[in-house]
Amino acid sequence: MLGKIIILLIIIIYVLHPEKLRSQEIVLLQKPITEKFVQTALRDQKGFYWLKELCTIGPRLSGSKNSLQAITWAEKTMHHSGWDRVWLQQVMVPNWKRGIREQAIISRSSLFLKKQLAVAALGGSVGTGAAGISAPVLEVKSLIEIDSLKEQAKGKIIFLNRPFDRSKFNPNEAYGGAVDQRTRGAARAGKVGAAAVLVRSVTSKYDNAPHTGVMYYEENGIKIPAAAMGQIDADFLSSALRQDPNLELTLRLSCKINPDTISYNVIGEIEGTEYPEEIIVVGGHFDSWDLGYGAHDDGGGCIQAMEVLDLFRRMEIKPKRTIRCVLFMDEEQHQAGAERYAAWSDSSGQKHLAAIEADRGVLTPRGFYVDADSLILAKIQSWQNILELTGIDWIRKGGSGADVGKIKQAKALLGYVPDSQRYYDFHHSANDVFETVHPRELELGAAAMATLVYLLSEEGL
Amino acid sequence: MLGKIIILLIIIIYVLHPEKLRSQEIVLLQKPITEKFVQTALRDQKGFYWLKELCTIGPRLSGSKNSLQAITWAEKTMHHSGWDRVWLQQVMVPNWKRGIREQAIISRSSLFLKKQLAVAALGGSVGTGAAGISAPVLEVKSLIEIDSLKEQAKGKIIFLNRPFDRSKFNPNEAYGGAVDQRTRGAARAGKVGAAAVLVRSVTSKYDNAPHTGVMYYEENGIKIPAAAMGQIDADFLSSALRQDPNLELTLRLSCKINPDTISYNVIGEIEGTEYPEEIIVVGGHFDSWDLGYGAHDDGGGCIQAMEVLDLFRRMEIKPKRTIRCVLFMDEEQHQAGAERYAAWSDSSGQKHLAAIEADRGVLTPRGFYVDADSLILAKIQSWQNILELTGIDWIRKGGSGADVGKIKQAKALLGYVPDSQRYYDFHHSANDVFETVHPRELELGAAAMATLVYLLSEEGL
Repeated sequence: MLGKIIILLIIIIYVLHPEKLRSQEIVLLQKPITEKFVQTALRDQKGFYWLKELCTIGPRLSGSKNSLQAITWAEKTMHHSGWDRVWLQQVMVPNWKRGIREQAIISRSSLFLKKQLAVAALGGSVGTGAAGISAPVLEVKSLIEIDSLKEQAKGKIIFLNRPFDRSKFNPNEAYGGAVDQRTRGAARAGKVGAAAVLVRSVTSKYDNAPHTGVMYYEENGIKIPAAAMGQIDADFLSSALRQDPNLELTLRLSCKINPDTISYNVIGEIEGTEYPEEIIVVGGHFDSWDLGYGAHDDGGGCIQAMEVLDLFRRMEIKPKRTIRCVLFMDEEQHQAGAERYAAWSDSSGQKHLAAIEADRGVLTPRGFYVDADSLILAKIQSWQNILELTGIDWIRKGGSGADVGKIKQAKALLGYVPDSQRYYDFHHSANDVFETVHPRELELGAAAMATLVYLLSEEGL
Repeated sequence: MLGKIIILLIIIIYVLHPEKLRSQEIVLLQKPITEKFVQTALRDQKGFYWLKELCTIGPRLSGSKNSLQAITWAEKTMHHSGWDRVWLQQVMVPNWKRGIREQAIISRSSLFLKKQLAVAALGGSVGTGAAGISAPVLEVKSLIEIDSLKEQAKGKIIFLNRPFDRSKFNPNEAYGGAVDQRTRGAARAGKVGAAAVLVRSVTSKYDNAPHTGVMYYEENGIKIPAAAMGQIDADFLSSALRQDPNLELTLRLSCKINPDTISYNVIGEIEGTEYPEEIIVVGGHFDSWDLGYGAHDDGGGCIQAMEVLDLFRRMEIKPKRTIRCVLFMDEEQHQAGAERYAAWSDSSGQKHLAAIEADRGVLTPRGFYVDADSLILAKIQSWQNILELTGIDWIRKGGSGADVGKIKQAKALLGYVPDSQRYYDFHHSANDVFETVHPRELELGAAAMATLVYLLSEEGL
C-alpha cells in the first residue's frame, strides 16, 4: 500500500514538474550530437596528435624561448583550424631560469661521503652561488616545527620531509596536506636563519624524480635557496641522518630570478549565431614546469580546449553563443595571464556566460565541478544524463581552476575533473611526458567539454 | 507554490519510507569502516606486492607448469595470511600449447618478398605442421562474407580484417563488435575449404602486438589453423594485397591441442560468526593467456579478491557471514573451474548469498554491475553513498562475470567494473604486464569490493 502511494506521488511530482520534462526533452534532442562528439573525437584523435606535436617543442616554462615557440605553434594551429578569430594577448610574466647546475652531495660524513642526491630547484628560488652552500642538515616534518627552532637552525640546511599521505582516497587532499612545505618552507626557514631548504617531493609515485613547483618568499623576507628531492633519496637522507647526524651536504643551484618578460595568452573563438555577445570560455594554462614536457599539466588541458572548438568546426555546428578557447600563460607562478584576461574582459565590457578550466591532467573523465548559484548548479546537473555518454559520472559544487576562477563576472565557473589517482605521479616532474597520455582518455575529456559547451550555448544559463 | 508542494511531498515520502532512513543509518555506521578499508589498502599496498610476486612466475596458461606453480604460490600465500580454511579443488582443464614456432612470411611476391608479419596462434588452434601452409591470401571483413565465398576460398588463407571500432565510447562494445572473427573465423573458413585464417588483433592500441584469445571449432567440423596479427601488420598486409593481390604467405604454427590435464581452483575463506552457512564469494580467474603475464587479465582481479579477505584479517573484522575467495582455473577457454565450483557447491548443499567477480582489469574503480531481482538491486544501490568513498560512482543492472555467473543459486551475482578505456590495450597480449598496473587503482578496487562484501555480510539480502 505504502509503495503504491509513493509511486503515485512520484508520478504526480513528475507530471507537475515542467523542469523534469524539459530535461527529458533536452536528452532526446542532444543525445545524437553528444554521440557524434564522442565518435568524432575518438575516431580522429586530432587532439592527441596535436599534443604530440606540442610536446616535441619541449617544456614551456613561463618566459622561456620554448614557451614562445609553443605560442606561435598554437596561434598557427588555431588559424589553420579555421575558427572565426585568433589573437595573442600580451602579458608580462615571470622569467625564472633553472640554469645548468643542480647538485646535492654529501660533503662531510664518515659513512656516506660523496653520495649524490636527486634534487631540482623549486620555481622562483634564488641560486646558491657557484661555490654552493655547505652545511649540516636538520630534518623537520612541518612549518610549525621550523618556527620552533631557535639557535640550532642557524646556517643549517632544513630538510622538510613530511610525506604525501598515500593512504588518502583523494590524491588532491594528500597533495594539499604536504605542499605547504614546498610553497612556504624557504620563507619560514629563512626567518630562523637557515641557509637553504630541501623538500621531499610531493608525489604519489615512489621513485627518485624530484617534483618542482612554485615557492614564495615573503615581501622583504630573507631569500634562501630551495630544492625538491626525489622520494627515494629523501628516505635515504633521513636514514643517513639517523646514523650520522653531523653529516654535511653541499647544495649547488644555478637558478636565477630574472626580470619579468613579455609573453602572451593565445585566444581563438567561434562566434555565436544568436547571442554573439555571450561568451563561453574553455581553457587551460599553456606554461608548464621545465623538468618534463607538461603533457598532463597542462598541455593536455589546453589541447582539449582547442579540440572542443575544432569539434564544432569539424562537425559544422554553429553555436548560438560565442565559444572562446583561452590558453593562459603563467598559471604555475603568478597567474599573470589569467589576471590579464579577466581585467581585459571586464574593462572591455564583455559578458561571460560560463568558463570551463581543464587543469587536472588528462586521465579518464569523471565529473565537473561547478562554482555557481545553486539554481544554476541544478540546471547544469539536469544535463547529467547527456554528459554520461562521455564518461561524466557526476556534477558537483566545487572549484573551477586557478585561471578561469578569476573571471568573476561569469554566471558559472566550471572545472573538468578527470580521474586523479595517477595524476601526482607525473605532476611537475620529468615523468610528465606525452607517453603517459592515453588517446581515448584525452579525447573523451574533449568530447565531455564539447558537450557541456554545446548545452551551455544552446540553453544558456 | 508548486515547489513547496513538491518539497512537502518529498518530506512525506521520506518520513513514511523506513528504507530511506535505514539507508542513512547504514551510511553513518559503515562510513568509518569503509574509510579504514581504503586507508589500509592504499597504505599497505599488499595486493600490489602480491601481484608483483605472482607476475614473476610468468604467464599462467591453463594446464601449464607455470599455472601449477602459481596455484602453489596462491595456496601458500593464503595459508600465511591466516584465513580460516584454504584448499584446492581439482578440475580437468584444457592443455593447449603454443610451442616455439610462430611465423608468417610473404613467400611469393614481386614487391614484398620475405617480409615477416607479427602473428600469434589463437588459443585452441591446431598447428600447421613443420612445413607450414603456403597459400594466397583473401581479405574479408566479416563471417557472412566468408559464407558467401565459393570456389575462390579453397586452399586460401582467409584474412579477417574488420577493425576494433575505436570511435565507440564503450571499448567492450568495440571488442564485441569484432571478436567474432577471432572466435568463429576458423570454423566458418574451414567450411568453405580455406587452409588457415589470420585475424586482425582485437585491441584499442595501435601497435604491432598480436592479441590472442580463444577460438572454437565446431564439433566434427574441419579444423584449420588460426592466428592473430598485430594491427600495424594487418594494415600492411591489406595494403600489400591491393598492390599485389597474388602474393602468397607461408604460415608456420607449432601449437597443439593436448589432452585435458589436472589443475585446481584455489579457495580460501573466513568463516562467518553469525551465519557461517551463508557464503559470499569474491573471485577472479587464475589462468591467463601466455603472451603477457596476465597482470590485468586476471592476475590483478584474483589478487584483489585475496586482498579483500586479507583486509578483513588485517583490520580484525569478523564477518557475520562466510567470505570466500575463489580463484577459478580456465576461464579463458572452457570455464572448467567455474563449472566445477558451481556443481560442487550445488551438490554439497551450500547456500550462496552473493558472488562478485573481478575480471575487467584493475584500472581505476567506476561501478558495480548487479545481476539480481530488482528489489535486491535497489537494496544494493542504497549503499551507493558508502561505496562512493572507494571511487564507485554507480551501481547498475548488468552481467557479473564468466565464472561467478555460473553460481545460479546465489541471490545476487555482481561484477566489479573498473574504468575500461585502456583495458583492451593490454588484453590477451604481451602488453599485459605488471608495469601497467597502478598500485592505487588496484588497491581501491580491493577496498571497493571489501566494502561491498562487508555490507553484504552485515546486512544480508
